[in-house]
Amino acid sequence: MQEGFLMGVTATYLFPTKPNQSEIAEQHALGLTIGSWTDIHHLEMEQLKKHKGEVVSIEKGETKDKVKIFYPSANVSADLPAIFTTVYGKLSFFEGYELIDLEFDQDLLSQFPGPRFGAKGIREQLNVYDRPLLKAIFKGIMGRDLSFFSAQLEDLLAGGIDLVKDDEILFENELTPFYKRITTAKEILDRHYEKTGNKVLYAVNLSGKTSTLSEKAERAQELGANCLLFNVHAYGLDALQSLRENHQINLPIVAHSALSGVLAGQAGGGFSYELLVGKLTRLVGGDLSLFPSPYGDKSKGNVTISKEEASAINRTLTEENGFEKTFSVPSAGIHPGLVPQLLKDFGDNLVVNAGGGIFGHPDGPISGAQAFRAAIDASVQHIPLSEAANTSEPLKRALEQWGEMTVS
Amino acid sequence: MQEGFLMGVTATYLFPTKPNQSEIAEQHALGLTIGSWTDIHHLEMEQLKKHKGEVVSIEKGETKDKVKIFYPSANVSADLPAIFTTVYGKLSFFEGYELIDLEFDQDLLSQFPGPRFGAKGIREQLNVYDRPLLKAIFKGIMGRDLSFFSAQLEDLLAGGIDLVKDDEILFENELTPFYKRITTAKEILDRHYEKTGNKVLYAVNLSGKTSTLSEKAERAQELGANCLLFNVHAYGLDALQSLRENHQINLPIVAHSALSGVLAGQAGGGFSYELLVGKLTRLVGGDLSLFPSPYGDKSKGNVTISKEEASAINRTLTEENGFEKTFSVPSAGIHPGLVPQLLKDFGDNLVVNAGGGIFGHPDGPISGAQAFRAAIDASVQHIPLSEAANTSEPLKRALEQWGEMTVS
Repeated sequence: MQEGFLMGVTATYLFPTKPNQSEIAEQHALGLTIGSWTDIHHLEMEQLKKHKGEVVSIEKGETKDKVKIFYPSANVSADLPAIFTTVYGKLSFFEGYELIDLEFDQDLLSQFPGPRFGAKGIREQLNVYDRPLLKAIFKGIMGRDLSFFSAQLEDLLAGGIDLVKDDEILFENELTPFYKRITTAKEILDRHYEKTGNKVLYAVNLSGKTSTLSEKAERAQELGANCLLFNVHAYGLDALQSLRENHQINLPIVAHSALSGVLAGQAGGGFSYELLVGKLTRLVGGDLSLFPSPYGDKSKGNVTISKEEASAINRTLTEENGFEKTFSVPSAGIHPGLVPQLLKDFGDNLVVNAGGGIFGHPDGPISGAQAFRAAIDASVQHIPLSEAANTSEPLKRALEQWGEMTVS
Repeated sequence: MQEGFLMGVTATYLFPTKPNQSEIAEQHALGLTIGSWTDIHHLEMEQLKKHKGEVVSIEKGETKDKVKIFYPSANVSADLPAIFTTVYGKLSFFEGYELIDLEFDQDLLSQFPGPRFGAKGIREQLNVYDRPLLKAIFKGIMGRDLSFFSAQLEDLLAGGIDLVKDDEILFENELTPFYKRITTAKEILDRHYEKTGNKVLYAVNLSGKTSTLSEKAERAQELGANCLLFNVHAYGLDALQSLRENHQINLPIVAHSALSGVLAGQAGGGFSYELLVGKLTRLVGGDLSLFPSPYGDKSKGNVTISKEEASAINRTLTEENGFEKTFSVPSAGIHPGLVPQLLKDFGDNLVVNAGGGIFGHPDGPISGAQAFRAAIDASVQHIPLSEAANTSEPLKRALEQWGEMTVS
């Protein structure tokens, strides 16, 4: 084992079970590094040794074997495109080859930035420390103008949200242009702060061509944006890292998992969600990571992933690893009656994210947000929602609408 | 049907067969655009109409239904990240939902650059019009120094190659640094040109962080690089488009398909290769598109895709569509005996790409390249290789080594 003295990346794969797996793995470890280890002169061997891939371990399984291969740092530059191309560029073409984890030596690890703010920094900005945060999603903005947008924002603020985000499919458009959304929101958020003392973050969707992102983000900040939404998997994790590493941009970034289903959600192949939406999203600098909750109802068009996948994402976003923690934002199908379950599954240092669960409230979005806040406060104090509903009409009405999920 | 008067993108999907597919498709078409088409006032309906997604057609199949959904341009900006997020950001999470094609209205289409040079421009640069081109891959450079690199290049030139590329897993490194590879190769290529009058392109691997690519490409050009290799799927297609749209960079780009197996090669989900490695690689500006050949032997670690997939990629790279044609570069497992089959399957306006098929020649790489050139010349003239081998010792030896694939 070369890990002791060589620096590098260890990739963990699931390969379809084969009796001669060690031979296959060895072939890949060589093929993806120095190519061949035969017909090489003694002197060259010495030189090539520090570039040679190594099979670290093979754990046999019933349908898949867990294979770890170590790739020396000497072979890659310290960026994910190089690392991905090395460890999975070719292997991605092999049926049923999954890449489930990457481990970096301390030196490589230290070349990732991690979140600029993270959960801690976001809490400091909002001055909220003792409960999960409430985040809303603008709804039905497409085709509507800025007055519609403003009215929604006013309602959400009145209901007591902490953050609000654009729908990830709202791009540059004539009715609610990117820069206008920022300045319009800023005015409303500033007024709200003056009135209530509560700061609220608005994650505006940073979009457009890759080459324009940095400049747009800088301009957004100048205009008073206080948070960015970014469809990271439409650009690649390294594009998020570029934003994080641009010292002109001092804004928290909500990494949205749209499109990651292609990369991680396919039966039997691809990345693990844990690696892509969890560990690496944190390493490259996501302050919040938004991913499908395990509660969605597919028949209603909700996206959803398994509880195991969601928990693994949450774990890698928040476990101690020397970087700031990234806020978990499990999304889709969230209503107030679900909050105790959400906290049980993800802990209480998280962001409760809702769209339909706020706007679908029978008494409208103000009550919708209030119902969530009441549900959050009750859950933190371990008060059953049905009891809390006695002192919160919005929560009572929400529970009538959606019911209360029993904590399992 | 709104296509008559509305501009936009039509996405073709395969959804798992369902009896109520039209209801499901309609739900998605709304969910991914204006959200809902009920409880909307008459006046708003007028306004929202031009943002509303439409189910264009549903073709029932045995296991999958082919569903076409139209998304108005009003909803997206003219860039692939916005388009992908809209048409597949959420749907990628649904099991078995494949995105197999995108069609753009003329206005959106005209906002893509297409190849700067394309097959035609590459042929003009090389002054070779009457045969497929021969492209080599440097072999085993990792861990070796510039003298090793130079010696390989000299051999390949002596053998008569037209292009040569870095291995896609060769990144910035101490032994053969990016800029040094360029200047070293330039000197050798210039000398070769003076001596023989033959220009040869060397595709150097443009790698590193997304934010550094443009500057590195510009500097590469200044130093005399004449072609770039780019692992487009490690960065996203839009990053390739950014390079193409940078008017400071006047170099042909070889788009490498590494990692596209994650996006397109998974059983039952993801993109089609045809769309990703074919149509879109051409639209964003790839001059050559390198993808797995259908001839690879997986047991030898070759990557491979089906003949149908490879043919579909080739078709979308080369069919008339107003853009320059992108050269097809089917790769892996190519040896001289395969050339007639290759031309039969892909036509003769293509690039024959070989690594092991050149370096594995029993008499070394010079003979390896010569064997390919002989095989190409014979194939173009419909002379059987066994006959051509009578006048080419390198080809004769190659056929002894690898055999001759019967054209089927």
